[in-house]
Amino acid sequence: MNSGTIQLDQGSGGRATHELVQDLFVNLLENEYLREMNDSALVEVQGGQIAVTTDSYVVDPIFFPGGNIGSLAVHGTVNDLAMCGAKPLYLTAGFILEEGLPLELLGQIVASMAEAAREAKVLIVAGDTKVVPRGKADKIFINTAGIGIVPPGVRIGGHYAQPGDAVLINGTIGDHGMAVLCKREGLTFENEIQSDSASLNDLVAKMLDASPHIHVLRDPTRGGVATTLNEIAQQSGVGIRLFDESLPIREDVAGACELLGLDPLYVANEGKVLACVPADSAALVLEAMQSHPLGKRACQIGGVVATDTGRVFLRTRIGGHRLVDMLRGEQFPRIC
Amino acid sequence: MNSGTIQLDQGSGGRATHELVQDLFVNLLENEYLREMNDSALVEVQGGQIAVTTDSYVVDPIFFPGGNIGSLAVHGTVNDLAMCGAKPLYLTAGFILEEGLPLELLGQIVASMAEAAREAKVLIVAGDTKVVPRGKADKIFINTAGIGIVPPGVRIGGHYAQPGDAVLINGTIGDHGMAVLCKREGLTFENEIQSDSASLNDLVAKMLDASPHIHVLRDPTRGGVATTLNEIAQQSGVGIRLFDESLPIREDVAGACELLGLDPLYVANEGKVLACVPADSAALVLEAMQSHPLGKRACQIGGVVATDTGRVFLRTRIGGHRLVDMLRGEQFPRIC
Repeated sequence: MNSGTIQLDQGSGGRATHELVQDLFVNLLENEYLREMNDSALVEVQGGQIAVTTDSYVVDPIFFPGGNIGSLAVHGTVNDLAMCGAKPLYLTAGFILEEGLPLELLGQIVASMAEAAREAKVLIVAGDTKVVPRGKADKIFINTAGIGIVPPGVRIGGHYAQPGDAVLINGTIGDHGMAVLCKREGLTFENEIQSDSASLNDLVAKMLDASPHIHVLRDPTRGGVATTLNEIAQQSGVGIRLFDESLPIREDVAGACELLGLDPLYVANEGKVLACVPADSAALVLEAMQSHPLGKRACQIGGVVATDTGRVFLRTRIGGHRLVDMLRGEQFPRIC
Repeated sequence: MNSGTIQLDQGSGGRATHELVQDLFVNLLENEYLREMNDSALVEVQGGQIAVTTDSYVVDPIFFPGGNIGSLAVHGTVNDLAMCGAKPLYLTAGFILEEGLPLELLGQIVASMAEAAREAKVLIVAGDTKVVPRGKADKIFINTAGIGIVPPGVRIGGHYAQPGDAVLINGTIGDHGMAVLCKREGLTFENEIQSDSASLNDLVAKMLDASPHIHVLRDPTRGGVATTLNEIAQQSGVGIRLFDESLPIREDVAGACELLGLDPLYVANEGKVLACVPADSAALVLEAMQSHPLGKRACQIGGVVATDTGRVFLRTRIGGHRLVDMLRGEQFPRIC
């Protein structure tokens, strides 16, 4: 493990990232919280439980249709908190700026962060700014860490999927990754593909109002829906079946994926939540999702089964099944 | 403000950093916590108060005498929590890695973080890893955010210095900055200058045990002792007098500073704490500092006065006074 050098695919969010994180970070930093491998860590503070998370953002380009690195840095971290059922409260923001970055761009990015924070009802309470010489970073990198409170009794995490659960999603897949990639590569279509980047905490609160019995919530960011479902299947020791014909994909995203030879199941999302919900609550939760602005195209895309533990299969339109593995290699770097 | 580009001195920790933070971040992200401008924000969670802080580390070189970017990232954030009297509990760690970074180096860095966390009795509970293509970052950048609990009744911050307070420090100044700079520039002396990088939470706990009436604690990192004392003078609306003859400086650090034309008052420290303490508690606190391994050379270096508010003066050995301003311009980038 400790030979060789860091490769791009170790930042993909797929299998190589998981191996690096497990072999190096989790082993060396060893503690019960880190080992859980959820979007946020749940820790005890002042007699209650809080959720803690961190993410660095290195997206290229820093402005893309539907957002920029600043709004993304708020949405992404708010979502990691929401995914364990926490109410996001406070964020920190650490900026690494490249000498020569236009102040006007920085101002726009910070204004977007402020707006995203207001919308998500979180406060950015602490910050840090570093500047590195020209050529030592690429324009701007942002780290946001987040803190939220976990209501008593809430128990949501990647380990809790159960056979029989319905797998729900709040809308179309692959929008963020394709918006960033098309912008970066200068690909234009009739309508510009928009990122789905958004804070999901309000949607998740509505879902939990509809049923407190949600087992798993997770946002399929780097590595896409396929990788995230593999994580859940492995953590919970279950199998997951996806229904190909039910996967919601925008026509332009599907077209761009086809053009570039990408599978939308592996393309990053930044405003989507996957939920594993007991069958008897699924209709209620789905209804709550569909009645929310961020869940209009919510639907069931699969189910949890007791067989093929740790694996995800796609039932194709013609009735076959194909294994949907974690992302291997790097589809494209710097998508978030 | 929103014209021009980011300059290196805006990351120096001195006047240019303060102006950028105030004009852009604090104004746009506007909230009561951020406005306090202390090393950590104090926020309400679960009915109690917690301290929250963040710092990104971009030090060059990533290994220096006395530490590396990993140990530094733990020490620095632990210290920011300790400076508001909080007991540090949890850290997050966000890594931005450059493609091609040797895994062996990464392993050493993460092992140093683990060791520093163990020593400081904090847990690293959440993490994130991004990889950017070769040339888009410089080897490794680390962000650590931290959470601590603030004991009830503790009220320590940059606003609370009072005329009559003694200004104490736990040891020699300028060690970290000169250790990094000499390593970077290939300057060698008879004895290699060692960074003072260390977690100060245990020392601070002993100081608070000695007297709960400490007004201000702050670690003089970027911008050095001079800049930190200026911050305190401005936040508290007081003047500060330094006694030149009492400033503890290692001979090799003083020599290196002279050689390079640097003023040690502006050189970064990573294991030092400045304390403003009521005169009647000063002897007790100083004794507690001196009996701790990290405070053997602790001493009083000045006092707080009611005149010259917002300013720091140095009383020279020949009896004159000179104004000690905040750091202007950039002494040298990427020191932490």
